[in-house]
Order: sequence, then C-alpha cells, then structure tokens
Amino acid sequence: MLSLQSETDGRWIGQVKASLDQVLIDHAHCEHKAAATAMSLMGAYIDNQDLCAEMTRIVEEELEHFHMVIKLLGSRGIPFVKQQAGHYGKELNGLVRGGEPNKAIDRLLVAGLIEARSCERFSLLAKHIDDTELAEFYNSLFESEARHHTTYVRLAKQFAADEVVRDRLAELSAAESEIISRGNPLPRMHS
Amino acid sequence: MLSLQSETDGRWIGQVKASLDQVLIDHAHCEHKAAATAMSLMGAYIDNQDLCAEMTRIVEEELEHFHMVIKLLGSRGIPFVKQQAGHYGKELNGLVRGGEPNKAIDRLLVAGLIEARSCERFSLLAKHIDDTELAEFYNSLFESEARHHTTYVRLAKQFAADEVVRDRLAELSAAESEIISRGNPLPRMHS
Repeated sequence: MLSLQSETDGRWIGQVKASLDQVLIDHAHCEHKAAATAMSLMGAYIDNQDLCAEMTRIVEEELEHFHMVIKLLGSRGIPFVKQQAGHYGKELNGLVRGGEPNKAIDRLLVAGLIEARSCERFSLLAKHIDDTELAEFYNSLFESEARHHTTYVRLAKQFAADEVVRDRLAELSAAESEIISRGNPLPRMHS
Repeated sequence: MLSLQSETDGRWIGQVKASLDQVLIDHAHCEHKAAATAMSLMGAYIDNQDLCAEMTRIVEEELEHFHMVIKLLGSRGIPFVKQQAGHYGKELNGLVRGGEPNKAIDRLLVAGLIEARSCERFSLLAKHIDDTELAEFYNSLFESEARHHTTYVRLAKQFAADEVVRDRLAELSAAESEIISRGNPLPRMHS
C-alpha cells in the first residue's frame, strides 16, 4: 500500500483496540507533529515556492485534524494530556542523511512514509473497531494522508532524478517496515 | 505604542527606504518565523486548549501573510532568496529564562514584543514610503500584528498573576528597546 513494504500484522490492532483512548491522545500529538514537520521543511527550503505552497496546505490540514481529534476527546470526556511518544518517528528521522540534496530527499521521504503508515493504520482502525463514530472519523482522514504521501514523494523528486528518489524510497521503506515490525509496548498509532 | 518603551528613530526609515526590496524579502522570512514560533509554542504547551486555538489562528494568518509577500515579490520581479538574518530575534530569544512557568511567560512575551515592534514598523512604512501599493499592504497588516501582541500577552497571564506578567513585560520591553536601538548594518524589518 502506497510505498510501504509490509502490512501491519494482527498484533497492533489487538493492542490498540484495548487502549483506544490512549491511541486517540497519541493521534492528536501526531497531527501536531505532522504540522510541525511541514512547517520545518518550509523553513529549510523556503526559496522553493512549490514546496512552500504544499507545506502550507499540509500545515493547515494537519492542524484542522488536530482540532478535530481534540474535539472528539472532549466529547468523550478524555483529558488531552502530554504522553510519552513511541520510538517510531525518532528512529525514522535518525535515517536522514546529512548534506544536500540528500537531506532534503530523506526528510521529505521520511515524512511521506509516516503519512503512508498513518494512512494504512487509519484504514485498519476504520475496519476493525466497533465504535462507529471513531471508525467513520478514521475513514474520513484516510484520503488526506494518502495525498500527503504523494505530495512528499513528488517534492523529493525536485531534488534528484526520479530513479534516485525511487531507490532511496525503497531503502527507507524497508527500514520503516523493520522499525514498525518491532512494535512498542505503549499503545500508539505507530506502535 | 502597545508595550513598546521606545519609538523607532529616523535612522531606520532612512536605511530601509533605500533597500525596500531587501526589507520585503526579510518580511517574508519574518512571517514564516512568526508562524514557526506559534507552532513551536503550541507543541510546548499542547495540553492548553486556549493556547492551541490561538496559535493555530496565528499560524494560519502568518502563513497567509507569507504568501501575500511572496506574491508581491513575484509581481515585482524580485527573487525570493535566503538571507542573512539580523540579530534582533536571536538576542530577544536569548532573554527567555529556563524552568516553568518562567519559560512560557518569556517565550509568549518575547513573541508578543516582536509582534508589537513589527506593528510599529509596518505603520512607519505605511506612512513614509512613496510606493502606494506597498504602503497599503503594510497598512493592511497593521491590525493583525497588534491583535497577535494582545493575544500573546493575554496567554502569558495564564502562567502567572497579572502583575508578575506586567513587571516581566516591562523588563523584556526595556531590553527590546535597547536591542533595537543598536540597529544593524543589514536593512531589515527589525534593523
């Protein structure tokens, strides 16, 4: 699915179905982090007009999603608190190479892979959880995550030839599969 | 004006009138930095709903202004490039104390002071430059900068008693006046 090299196994859905409140809190944090990532990429490549226009759109959408999750938490009486993050994002960002254009390519592809995995997991949540309101909510977010994935991969291709980006995406995607397969004892969107 | 303890002297308007293109480029960078500051404050105090709602609004407005400046640069054939920043923001942010709630108070007040100074300088540009389109543009941004100043000071008061915030604002504002009075050889919005 998208650029992912592995499907989420049954372990994850079992883990998060037992802790949907915690996953929803994590989800809100993920939306803010996705917005902050886009803002940071915009700052790093601010003289790239196409990138800045796309990052602005992503910032706005992710912040809109953040507030949708916060509203959902509020309506369910779940306090939105700070929360220990899983290792997924940190490990993936650790793969970003130094020096341009490699840094730009890797930052964009890592952001794109996180969107792809979120997309896959939203779709699993929409399919497997009994809570209809929540299932519909995850279903409604599916399309934008897939679109963000495509945007990030397209932008990476401004920094190198298509085949260079495709090969690096395959490498990073293999690493992503390995990282996510290890799981995390904390029930999170990317555990 | 607002919380500022000094008015910009004639030196600055003379400096920037001779380099409006460079100031316009700096202005675009300032708008992105203002958005990034709001995004970062949101991340640091993400369990504060009022703050998150206000930061979201500020992020969106600053990014909108960023694109307005980029469009203006484009219509004038001025390439938008990376640019060496002045020392103003860095020096002001260096005054932020460690440890909460002091860090929150200082970050919010520093952000508020930068908005106040931008507001004062937009108003000077609107008044003193002969370029009508540009003068009208700066005039149109005046109100939102003033409003952002008020928002930041109001939010700081969530972290300490009103008089504590008022006293700290007076201290930071005195430092701001000292920093801006030194000027900068680079023609910038805050030189």
